[in-house]
Amino acid sequence: MSRVVAPYLVFMGDETRALMAKTGIGVMQWAPERCLGQCRLSGAAVDLGLEELTPAQAAEKGARSLVIGIANVGGTISPSWRQVLNQALEAGLDIVAGMHERLRADPELAELARKTGRQLVDLRGPPEALAIGTGKARSGRRVLTVGTDCAVGKKYTALAIWRELGLRGQRADFCATGQTGVLISDKGFAVDSVVSDFISGAAEYLSPANDPDHWDVIEGQGSIFHPAYAGVSLGLLHGSQPEAIVLCHEAGRERLGFFEDFPVPDLQLAIDRHLEAARLTSPDVRCAGISLNTSRLDEAAARDLCVHLAGELSLPVIDPIRMGAGRIVDMLLSLPARA
Amino acid sequence: MSRVVAPYLVFMGDETRALMAKTGIGVMQWAPERCLGQCRLSGAAVDLGLEELTPAQAAEKGARSLVIGIANVGGTISPSWRQVLNQALEAGLDIVAGMHERLRADPELAELARKTGRQLVDLRGPPEALAIGTGKARSGRRVLTVGTDCAVGKKYTALAIWRELGLRGQRADFCATGQTGVLISDKGFAVDSVVSDFISGAAEYLSPANDPDHWDVIEGQGSIFHPAYAGVSLGLLHGSQPEAIVLCHEAGRERLGFFEDFPVPDLQLAIDRHLEAARLTSPDVRCAGISLNTSRLDEAAARDLCVHLAGELSLPVIDPIRMGAGRIVDMLLSLPARA
Repeated sequence: MSRVVAPYLVFMGDETRALMAKTGIGVMQWAPERCLGQCRLSGAAVDLGLEELTPAQAAEKGARSLVIGIANVGGTISPSWRQVLNQALEAGLDIVAGMHERLRADPELAELARKTGRQLVDLRGPPEALAIGTGKARSGRRVLTVGTDCAVGKKYTALAIWRELGLRGQRADFCATGQTGVLISDKGFAVDSVVSDFISGAAEYLSPANDPDHWDVIEGQGSIFHPAYAGVSLGLLHGSQPEAIVLCHEAGRERLGFFEDFPVPDLQLAIDRHLEAARLTSPDVRCAGISLNTSRLDEAAARDLCVHLAGELSLPVIDPIRMGAGRIVDMLLSLPARA
Repeated sequence: MSRVVAPYLVFMGDETRALMAKTGIGVMQWAPERCLGQCRLSGAAVDLGLEELTPAQAAEKGARSLVIGIANVGGTISPSWRQVLNQALEAGLDIVAGMHERLRADPELAELARKTGRQLVDLRGPPEALAIGTGKARSGRRVLTVGTDCAVGKKYTALAIWRELGLRGQRADFCATGQTGVLISDKGFAVDSVVSDFISGAAEYLSPANDPDHWDVIEGQGSIFHPAYAGVSLGLLHGSQPEAIVLCHEAGRERLGFFEDFPVPDLQLAIDRHLEAARLTSPDVRCAGISLNTSRLDEAAARDLCVHLAGELSLPVIDPIRMGAGRIVDMLLSLPARA
């Protein structure tokens, strides 16, 4: 697998929706030291607060890769991006993308990369030799973030928990399962690009047996309540064999993003259904808390909601951006280590 | 996609376990007119009752393809098969397989196929341009077979229902989702070979909108209770949007095949959990009956068990081999057509 070389020029196209720009936003939030500038096709596009640079300007300042920071449903290369992608290769930058459509499968890009000697890095490429899941119990401590929908904060929550565990002196790894996570941590792969027969096997591969006191904090994907992605989410849940799950949810979201016919599930129902499914491979699994994205609320309303839900659900309820993941980590560290 | 050309020489290797020989057994049961002979590496291997032929003898009698009738966990080409596969190509036969490991990715086979001008047909190849699932309601009637485990009769049951619907004058298609089904019906593809992000989209593709009185009888895969395959099963359930499911089960099986740590679920629990999951995309879904594989029981015990379970579960309970699928089709035809 080719590796990603920083620093990055983050390409945001003309994407105005934060939900579709989560790769760029996530890299900027969690690995700002890798981000040198941004390149946008429109002033209305999501602004990461980075210096606005053309590929040539970025290359001159030392950028090594153009990272495609936006997604689109289905994961294809938009025709409107092509000019900038060509310019990037000509300026000496690699191109890094996490879409389903492979950069290398695009004849024009492949030819230009060959001519310019640059890399096309497809982050979704899983390892060559995955095996099917075994379901066999393995050592080590594992927590998985799950969600009531896509793009509710599963990656952010996992990163916040991982960081907090480190601050507490725990040995912990962040296990990336999506392209942004890979860009941030430089390991893992996008599990939704795995052939579906191997989905739980991929999760076992990403969080292998480890020392009894070592934590793997696994980034969740999709939602078991999502009509397109539930299979990925369920396979990841079974393969991760988590002793704890953390349920992520966006306060105020009532319908699934881009799937308006589908309601966001009730929190207690979502906890129950996740635990029910997770028990297949992890009989003593628990919910260690709720991670709320309260970005639509003001500070006071956000805190009130967390307190209210914590009482109702008898669980820690946090917004990891406003409050950090401390209370969920308290809960994780209070769980008895597995035999 | 290359197509399969009959008649077949069915290759059974030295596989003695019926569970691993289900491709060969299934083709012989449902498309005997396509099967000209069998080729085995050992007298102890599963016997389909076909004439024993070498690839050269089969070619002389008019065979056009060697079909690999056995599976192994993980889906690889066994070294012990190689001599026969080479002989088949040299004798002028195509090779047809449904394993994960692609025949065409094997350099030796690919080179020999090129030299001999024969086809290597990988049945698992899904269409190039699948989309993610939409979850949008679509017209037409659909029934999906689901299971308490792998290899319990989901394909057989779907074929029996499809045939019975035809006998009753209903317009119906069998929708193959596995390699054997494709060999039998000459359409469909193996859904477990689809990239996991597209699993429910693949199911939508396989059973598209149709006339309000047209039935798609969809072959299920795996089990939502299986630690390796639940993701595939759930995606197929969501994408199929069935108005009815039929639960398939092997009488007397208590542990999952090859996954002995995992119990086979209780039938009522399995019905409840499938309906709960299916309601996401098909709110009025029902269970139309239980299909039991009673091959371990004698005729009287099998009939007693069906009667007993039918009373307990208040559903039609059949063994499709012993009794046909008539009672389940009665139930399906009694369901009110969807708006």
